[in-house]
Amino acid sequence: MHKTTVIENIHSRKSVRKYTEEKVSDEDLLILVKAGMAAPTGKNRQPWHFITVVSRETLDIMAEELPYAKMLHNVSAAIVVCGDVERSPYWFLDCSVASQNILLAAEASGFGAVWTAAYPYEDRMGVVRKCLNLPDNIMPLNVIPVGYPAGAEKPKDKWDETKLHKDKW
Amino acid sequence: MHKTTVIENIHSRKSVRKYTEEKVSDEDLLILVKAGMAAPTGKNRQPWHFITVVSRETLDIMAEELPYAKMLHNVSAAIVVCGDVERSPYWFLDCSVASQNILLAAEASGFGAVWTAAYPYEDRMGVVRKCLNLPDNIMPLNVIPVGYPAGAEKPKDKWDETKLHKDKW
Repeated sequence: MHKTTVIENIHSRKSVRKYTEEKVSDEDLLILVKAGMAAPTGKNRQPWHFITVVSRETLDIMAEELPYAKMLHNVSAAIVVCGDVERSPYWFLDCSVASQNILLAAEASGFGAVWTAAYPYEDRMGVVRKCLNLPDNIMPLNVIPVGYPAGAEKPKDKWDETKLHKDKW
Repeated sequence: MHKTTVIENIHSRKSVRKYTEEKVSDEDLLILVKAGMAAPTGKNRQPWHFITVVSRETLDIMAEELPYAKMLHNVSAAIVVCGDVERSPYWFLDCSVASQNILLAAEASGFGAVWTAAYPYEDRMGVVRKCLNLPDNIMPLNVIPVGYPAGAEKPKDKWDETKLHKDKW
């Protein structure tokens, strides 16, 4: 039962870019960040930082200045997952894993969310860095808008048996 | 209920390095790989490949030759998550996200698993490459042993409120 629920949630997660006007609560955002902070990290370095953005002005500026994040105009909140390059040179692996925890927790909570990339694109990272006043050692991986889904998106079936290999290539 | 189950599973996931002698079935391994293949990928490139290793000989050779994967001696199966660098130069982000799906599905299934790193360590990648006969464009991210937990490990509490920021750094 437990197994089925978790695995169904993994398969029902989708990238959601259209939202209703309902706002996401601070309590719910905290649940998502706590899920992110439960991820495994290389050598247990936990090189991450999470910035919850609810400022209308900041969301709108990022929507304007980032090429694939226009939907930030239509959400009340976003989570920016960042890594401290001084804490781990491989922060982007740990922060990717934490981001997936957030996306899965969002799906389970009835939210729509989507990973919009900052890293590895210098221009996008610069926008986020400026908007959020990030120190030089803090690298933004992505901006994840969080809202209630308008219901347009469905999960993709990505199963491809040619990508499964047994014992050797 | 659904939400609680998924979020509890995220928090109860832990790195498991000690296993009982019980074997993991092929059906269960397939469920884990399918969970991996349900992850989001940048530009939907799906640059991943998954190798399920059940050969006792291969598991034992990797256990001997990888510095932090001795526990491969004690499992009946492992999943190696790989990326095709020709399909995406950022394969390691997508494959990290897929790996977390596998680890979460393993937790939900009652298995113990742990990410043992191959990438970015050239020596470890070389061992895996040789053992699994990987083409030059296929990069191994990690080796994930899968077994039934002996019960020794508990999840870490990584919550650290200094890593949560509101609106700006």
